[in-house]
Amino acid sequence: MTTLEIVGGRVLRPDLTVERADVLADRDAGTILAVGDVPAGDESLDATDGLVIPGLVNAHTHVAMALLRGYADDKPLHDWLREDVWPVEGVLEPTDVRAGAELGLVEMIRSGTTGFCDMYFDVGEIVAAVERAGLRARVGHGVVTVGKDDEAAREDLEEGLRVAEEYDGAADGRVSTAFMPHSLTPVDGEEFDEFVPRAREAEVPIHIHANETTGEVEPILDEHDERPLAYAAEHGLLEEGDFVAHGTHCDGSEIELLAERGAGVVHCPASNMKLASGIAPIQAMLDAGVAVGLGTDGAASNNDLSLFDECRDAAMVGKLAAGDASAVDAPTAFELATAGSAAVAGFDSGRIAEGANADLAVLDLDRAHLTPHHDLVSHLVYAASGADVRHTVCDGEVLMRDREVLTLDAERVRETAERRARAAIDRAES
Amino acid sequence: MTTLEIVGGRVLRPDLTVERADVLADRDAGTILAVGDVPAGDESLDATDGLVIPGLVNAHTHVAMALLRGYADDKPLHDWLREDVWPVEGVLEPTDVRAGAELGLVEMIRSGTTGFCDMYFDVGEIVAAVERAGLRARVGHGVVTVGKDDEAAREDLEEGLRVAEEYDGAADGRVSTAFMPHSLTPVDGEEFDEFVPRAREAEVPIHIHANETTGEVEPILDEHDERPLAYAAEHGLLEEGDFVAHGTHCDGSEIELLAERGAGVVHCPASNMKLASGIAPIQAMLDAGVAVGLGTDGAASNNDLSLFDECRDAAMVGKLAAGDASAVDAPTAFELATAGSAAVAGFDSGRIAEGANADLAVLDLDRAHLTPHHDLVSHLVYAASGADVRHTVCDGEVLMRDREVLTLDAERVRETAERRARAAIDRAES
Repeated sequence: MTTLEIVGGRVLRPDLTVERADVLADRDAGTILAVGDVPAGDESLDATDGLVIPGLVNAHTHVAMALLRGYADDKPLHDWLREDVWPVEGVLEPTDVRAGAELGLVEMIRSGTTGFCDMYFDVGEIVAAVERAGLRARVGHGVVTVGKDDEAAREDLEEGLRVAEEYDGAADGRVSTAFMPHSLTPVDGEEFDEFVPRAREAEVPIHIHANETTGEVEPILDEHDERPLAYAAEHGLLEEGDFVAHGTHCDGSEIELLAERGAGVVHCPASNMKLASGIAPIQAMLDAGVAVGLGTDGAASNNDLSLFDECRDAAMVGKLAAGDASAVDAPTAFELATAGSAAVAGFDSGRIAEGANADLAVLDLDRAHLTPHHDLVSHLVYAASGADVRHTVCDGEVLMRDREVLTLDAERVRETAERRARAAIDRAES
Repeated sequence: MTTLEIVGGRVLRPDLTVERADVLADRDAGTILAVGDVPAGDESLDATDGLVIPGLVNAHTHVAMALLRGYADDKPLHDWLREDVWPVEGVLEPTDVRAGAELGLVEMIRSGTTGFCDMYFDVGEIVAAVERAGLRARVGHGVVTVGKDDEAAREDLEEGLRVAEEYDGAADGRVSTAFMPHSLTPVDGEEFDEFVPRAREAEVPIHIHANETTGEVEPILDEHDERPLAYAAEHGLLEEGDFVAHGTHCDGSEIELLAERGAGVVHCPASNMKLASGIAPIQAMLDAGVAVGLGTDGAASNNDLSLFDECRDAAMVGKLAAGDASAVDAPTAFELATAGSAAVAGFDSGRIAEGANADLAVLDLDRAHLTPHHDLVSHLVYAASGADVRHTVCDGEVLMRDREVLTLDAERVRETAERRARAAIDRAES
């Protein structure tokens, strides 16, 4: 067994108290061995003047969309997809997806994110990027059957299952998968009835976009005369372990349904604001006992992958939505991005505690914007940014030390992404 | 004449186009001499791989409140003021105000802010901090007369005028002032009638909080049977050069009144979210021709002083409020923090152009989260953070070079603020 010690700093414990403590991780098992007064490790990270926090978990993103950051802004979801995003995605080659994924992973590592859930295509490229970068991920192929003939639709559904089976357990177990139909409207009820049981047999959970905009709710209400999540449950979705992205427009009955069935929700506040989709009723979901995590969505509708921004957004819009400054308070918002997202993603991460995955980050506390130290949890949510992260560790391995990413060549990744993004857009626009 | 050159980078021009250009500043006059192909300067800043942007202007803050960052969160405005903020502010000594101001100024310099408007007490301490730190500021004494007898109330009003007269033109002209009654309810109509004309004689503008919460609107509606800004105009406020903070709850008639009279509004989206005050109708104000700037409010209700966060917030909640993803687009949001805030504050800053104040910042562009470079204005609003600022320049002088603050000892400032904040809270709680 080789070990990693993180020494000299303070540690954020699972109850969100802060104590002076060191952390020892088992690099082989990838887990935390001890917190407190620990024996010396084989490798050492200095946490002096720092705070050891759980690595953040981005429970819903499309990491390769980092290629499209800033390509088209200030447009509503459906126009933006149709006019800007889909035409470029249509010409992306596997190498482009790899370049976009690596760009996003560099950004995640640099902002203290150690795990994420991803829905995209060319998933093998994303898995290869994750394997090299060292993060933890749950990945899947986003199945879209609308506009396709029966055969092509079935092929895409089969691809969704094939990907979920092929990559489960990849990268030494850091990669897990899910069956990921894109959303409720672009897949037929009959298709759900056939493929959902097959996903259950394959023992993979199901991740799907749901209720992101009123434009996703109304067609199902009109056609089926029921709320989208009731419709989803009828077709076998929303079992324990399943999770939906957004849930912006969920009514009380749907919140109850999620709580009863044990399905999770990934709150994506920045994307929901930027596309003017609305504000998800997160405080009501939490009060009902729904498992809620936090996600950035793709960088093209955010436009960054930092979960520090997302925590702050969750707290801020949570108060606006509730008309109550005490709603989605700082501890709640930070837990969304750690224990909450980890539970939704099915990772044994999101806490600095013996036995948990050694997925963590060390944050610099000796910064003007984090002074005075009245309340460090408040600072994590309301004042810190991804740039305050000093070290990032996943599965007991150091991914970033003193702001230097060790697993990817950040400069080369940046240059490749810049070049491939421009070339893809040129192809799409020509 | 000695000069400063900023060379090797790209420059954001007043029309928000980006071009490869150098900038030459006159250090004696504190103004920009030339943009483009410029002669060599006496001093040089390297902008390679960087973007030269106007220094950001924080048009409404209480800089010394950085001492209370994270002291009390997740509470509505009036409880938070009464239970947490006022008891501590009541025991602050001038040295504490100086320590808090220096802490906030370090944070501003490090996040590319070169100018600000400030309402607080012990204004001499804030002016001294500004003089040393090198920023540009419009300052004033926040007059509160409620709960005071006539004599004490008059004394505070006199203090408001005295401060505005004493410090106007301080720090080699970098400091200007305003008469700053705190808000409409804690000052009598008769007091306004006496002191507003005296402020006009003294040729200082008037800055006041207005319509921040519905709790500020209703008492005036009830007592005077008119909207607060109509009441303010009747008492001589809201002339050209005057500016109100927040304006969260302005109706159409008040927006028209602001546009007609030429008074400005400072949008404080983060504070308005955090205290669940609401969302100001900024897009409607801009459409009506109102001058709108951007402010962080105090760090205790934000909880940082970065205008990059504030630009992003303005764009994000602007879309939510309008239910329209095209509202408060990226160029609009960035202009709020530069040309918009500069106009409201009365600074000849906020643009990189010959003759303007040499108030600027250089942003690192070679970062993963700012890649690819499809649209740099989008990145400024949606992806950049204060930590991306490489150099900060105000009045032709370098305040930060390569992330090192040159005008204040950042480490000492941080330590002093930490110590004095703790001591003040101990006094308040004992």
